[in-house]
Amino acid sequence: MAARTVAHKLIADHLVSGEMVPGDEIALRIDQTLTQDATGTLVMLELEALGLERAQTDVSVQYVDHNLLQADSNNAEDHAFLRSACQRFGLWFSKPGNGVSHPTHMQRFGVPGRTMVGSDSHTPAAGSLGMLAIGVGGLEVARAIAGEPLYLTMPQIWGVRLTNELRPWVSAKDVILEMLRRHGVKGGVNRIIEYYGPGVDTLTAMDRHVIANMGAELGATTTVFPADDRVREFLDAEQRSDDFVEVLADDGAEYDVREAIDLAAVEPLIALPSSPGNVVPVREVEGKPVEQVVVGSSANPGLRDFAIVAEIVKGRQTAPGVSLDVNPTSRESLEDLMRMGSAFDLIAAGARLHQSGCMGCIGMGQAPTSTGNSLRTMPRNFPGRSGTADDSVFLCSPETAAAAALTGRITDPRELPDLLGIDYPALALPAVASVNTSMLEPPLPPDEASRVTLVKGANISSLPDFDPLPDRLELRVELVVGDDVSTDEILPAGARVLPFRSNIPRLAEFTFTDVDPEYAGRAAAGDGHAIVGGSNYGQGSSREHAALAPRHLGLRLVLAASYARIHWQNLANFGVLALEFVDPADHDRIQQGDVLVLDEVREAVASGPELTVRNETRDEVYAVRHRLSERQIAMVLAGGMIPWLREG
Amino acid sequence: MAARTVAHKLIADHLVSGEMVPGDEIALRIDQTLTQDATGTLVMLELEALGLERAQTDVSVQYVDHNLLQADSNNAEDHAFLRSACQRFGLWFSKPGNGVSHPTHMQRFGVPGRTMVGSDSHTPAAGSLGMLAIGVGGLEVARAIAGEPLYLTMPQIWGVRLTNELRPWVSAKDVILEMLRRHGVKGGVNRIIEYYGPGVDTLTAMDRHVIANMGAELGATTTVFPADDRVREFLDAEQRSDDFVEVLADDGAEYDVREAIDLAAVEPLIALPSSPGNVVPVREVEGKPVEQVVVGSSANPGLRDFAIVAEIVKGRQTAPGVSLDVNPTSRESLEDLMRMGSAFDLIAAGARLHQSGCMGCIGMGQAPTSTGNSLRTMPRNFPGRSGTADDSVFLCSPETAAAAALTGRITDPRELPDLLGIDYPALALPAVASVNTSMLEPPLPPDEASRVTLVKGANISSLPDFDPLPDRLELRVELVVGDDVSTDEILPAGARVLPFRSNIPRLAEFTFTDVDPEYAGRAAAGDGHAIVGGSNYGQGSSREHAALAPRHLGLRLVLAASYARIHWQNLANFGVLALEFVDPADHDRIQQGDVLVLDEVREAVASGPELTVRNETRDEVYAVRHRLSERQIAMVLAGGMIPWLREG
Repeated sequence: MAARTVAHKLIADHLVSGEMVPGDEIALRIDQTLTQDATGTLVMLELEALGLERAQTDVSVQYVDHNLLQADSNNAEDHAFLRSACQRFGLWFSKPGNGVSHPTHMQRFGVPGRTMVGSDSHTPAAGSLGMLAIGVGGLEVARAIAGEPLYLTMPQIWGVRLTNELRPWVSAKDVILEMLRRHGVKGGVNRIIEYYGPGVDTLTAMDRHVIANMGAELGATTTVFPADDRVREFLDAEQRSDDFVEVLADDGAEYDVREAIDLAAVEPLIALPSSPGNVVPVREVEGKPVEQVVVGSSANPGLRDFAIVAEIVKGRQTAPGVSLDVNPTSRESLEDLMRMGSAFDLIAAGARLHQSGCMGCIGMGQAPTSTGNSLRTMPRNFPGRSGTADDSVFLCSPETAAAAALTGRITDPRELPDLLGIDYPALALPAVASVNTSMLEPPLPPDEASRVTLVKGANISSLPDFDPLPDRLELRVELVVGDDVSTDEILPAGARVLPFRSNIPRLAEFTFTDVDPEYAGRAAAGDGHAIVGGSNYGQGSSREHAALAPRHLGLRLVLAASYARIHWQNLANFGVLALEFVDPADHDRIQQGDVLVLDEVREAVASGPELTVRNETRDEVYAVRHRLSERQIAMVLAGGMIPWLREG
Repeated sequence: MAARTVAHKLIADHLVSGEMVPGDEIALRIDQTLTQDATGTLVMLELEALGLERAQTDVSVQYVDHNLLQADSNNAEDHAFLRSACQRFGLWFSKPGNGVSHPTHMQRFGVPGRTMVGSDSHTPAAGSLGMLAIGVGGLEVARAIAGEPLYLTMPQIWGVRLTNELRPWVSAKDVILEMLRRHGVKGGVNRIIEYYGPGVDTLTAMDRHVIANMGAELGATTTVFPADDRVREFLDAEQRSDDFVEVLADDGAEYDVREAIDLAAVEPLIALPSSPGNVVPVREVEGKPVEQVVVGSSANPGLRDFAIVAEIVKGRQTAPGVSLDVNPTSRESLEDLMRMGSAFDLIAAGARLHQSGCMGCIGMGQAPTSTGNSLRTMPRNFPGRSGTADDSVFLCSPETAAAAALTGRITDPRELPDLLGIDYPALALPAVASVNTSMLEPPLPPDEASRVTLVKGANISSLPDFDPLPDRLELRVELVVGDDVSTDEILPAGARVLPFRSNIPRLAEFTFTDVDPEYAGRAAAGDGHAIVGGSNYGQGSSREHAALAPRHLGLRLVLAASYARIHWQNLANFGVLALEFVDPADHDRIQQGDVLVLDEVREAVASGPELTVRNETRDEVYAVRHRLSERQIAMVLAGGMIPWLREG
């Protein structure tokens, strides 16, 4: 057998079907799942709709870390619903306050050699332990919980060889910022990034979490590190030594693409507003005034990431006019920070210590002013993500963040010795972590679980039924749109709409509301309808609701020139037939109100990609095609993935 | 001289005019002011409109404790504005994260024998140190900062004699709940509550804070305690021994009203949903399930109030399904809790530790579900105050809160020894507090202050100008309303409107929006207008915006059968002439669109309470009267308090 990379080993060990040839479809057995509360409510409703009796994975954990502000009853009711769903379906439940999913999962559940899917784009962080962990849509997670394999296109393996070690005042965050500086936010698309080489040995497992987490910002499928002695040390400290399994690349393993980073040459870096790919050396933007510094999130979640800030600010004070906000990663880390005295040092220096959770990273509070600069150790700085529409958010390491908190301006942390007489702190982290699992509720035994009733607040309603594709479609066109319609246009995000994410009938009222406020009413009044789009239909965010909501309003057919990949997949998942014009010019021949007819459509879809659509209103016929695989054809005919899986 | 109470001594020492006869108007010199961020932005805009050069008080402090969630840029921009206003006008600025105003003020600035006004209804908490501290509207605070006296009606002095001492598991919160049990939420109206007798000696200064703070819930003007050895000990611990001044009632001092409480007979009490006056013994509601326990706020702000909870839950775990939320009062207290290990014990038991501030007490997060019970150590449980419209919030002591956190149901804490083997904790509080003033920015020196420019975010605009009352009013009636119109109807609160509280032109668009959505547009289009109301016009919340916003739209005259006291005062403060019908039946003779005329109105108002209004549209004349004092007449003629004070 040829020498294999870590990624190849992980895939080969879980391969259900397909070949490990880049571009081919493969199917993988999934050992673990991770859901967070913002996406988890829909996953749990999907499990309910699937009629699942009990999770089929080794470990499935539902975290509550996103919506912790609780400005009205919806958040608390989501939490209560998720807890009851965990009890019903045999999942672990991590209580609000227990911590951010990715580092908490790594601390308590991560096992080298395993696969995981998560309904959060930073799921790849578990690659730090030698896991193959992939962020996917909620329905994919629900399928995995139900024991179904994950289908994906085999990515290229991108080997990044690390040499030497990081200099003082430079840390893991600067390594991933260096990758983003070189390759931008699309550099990792269709690739698994695998770090190897002698420099890997100089990075702790939690350092690797930083790098694997923000691999998502490169667009990578995931990131993997070997499971080596650093991982063994991490699991020892977490009192889970027995979970260690060594996973190393074979000598001479070949990578599809190669890259090298000399760690000793990495300098403090910073991502400028408003993209994680907009990276420059800190020294190039030194002196800019700073009003806010936020430390936390899954991008810099380690005890060392907080302890180093505490050591730097210890006995000093944050600059006047600067708010230093600290979001502990987890209850476990906060306990350690208190034991070490670091939490005290942070508070005494003027920090605002918040509850454990994602907080400002996903715009849940901590919004800065419109005019000030905010430095954050977080993974993303997309425009408005902070909650301030015209924000100015920079991403940096804990060292760079601490320097700005003290000086009130962007400062290369390597200048702290000269500026403020601060030596690079030598941290003494506890050899054994403050393990405290009491906020993790284990799955109930099956006989108790089957008696649990789901607790649904006023804003949580079961998913609507999905009927099979009829044999004859006769559909009014309720909307005609142009090119590049985004999922934000199909279903807006934001505070007006998001509160209804667990209430599809209510949510559906907002479908296309900014494009045509009458659409939802027309669609709901009819008996099934079609939408006609241009090219790249459904670009942007991957949210499933953009397929689920119009489907609830009766959408059965989309005709478009072309589709964005994920939305096309979501349409199929929810049983909407998505067809492409053979001649894109046909788009302009169809008007809102036209009636389209497809006869014997079930057989036509099953027998090949070529179909015809008759426009009864105009007495025209259009040549169209689909791109469905055999598996997807069966799913669409069944009415979508949920009825299809339920049929067995 | 007759023997005097503490309240009489404090008043006599600051009396500018009037006699200390209950019901008479008196004027008091004000030594200190306190503002918080929710009301402070308007106070600072009023200082700007007054053209104030520098604060004339001994101490004026602006706290940032209410709006800390920062869901968008408005909060952070308010904070930046407040900081610049403190620098401009010579106030202290307490940074976000430094703590809740009342206990922080007590710890750092409270001085026995002094007077204070604050734009927060819990300002009376400073009575714990032997201060006379009164909660008033923002404009009254602005006047005090400008060196003007406070006018108020001399209250009755209500002497409450305390004997014996509290039993284990009973604490100060139960004393004020006992007062509320006996007298309800109106029991203290037009009274100053003065505690005296041997039982007072058994209560620490911070215990007294608990009792004085929630005197506001009785409707009392304020609460006072003597400044005795307990106060001396408190100031010693705060390293402010030099600020101690003894203030004791004279032997044989007479109270207008008398009351007695045997502290040994007080038992654990709880206020049921949804009024602080709805008090019963805890044992009467034992066993109700609890989903949330929140510890914090100015009602139980002392180190002991958190430390006792920590000792009770130490080494144990919160019940499954219970969220224990802890809001530290101040950075100082949090430092002490960390030094004592109490913060660790809370976290280890499952608490969610939040930033220092008011948080859920004023509905800033921590909203419970619609169906669950929430126990809080906070002062108020009005319907919906938690952020959940149909909430079920109970108010109780820290001991009762801790018991529920452990058992998951309402539990008389006296049962903890039997139930869980917990003895009543003997607390060892540090003799010297963790004084750390670095988040308190002192006033700038005058020459620097005068060069400061106010920092105004997009949502902060200067107050509009207020022109004098014209000599002839010819006004269209733009609205006719009935009896008992509340300030909530005049200007709604809530998330839709509150964000604009520092932007009067934008805010004014919401005036009467739920009563008549066309009113604001009609009013703004005209050139001054009148409103006709029934009896008790302007009842409810004291918000000044309910006068300021319609005034901005051109309101010059209200004709009503009668007025709620505070809104009537606010109308005068903002230069609106509020007249009463001599014959209330005249109300029904006037229609929207009628034109009312008052000729030579300046002279008419000045020369006596009787006036006439001519309805030009219907050719009728109505007899009306005003209730303005000489001072208020001058103010209304000038266009309101701001132009009047500016005239000097």
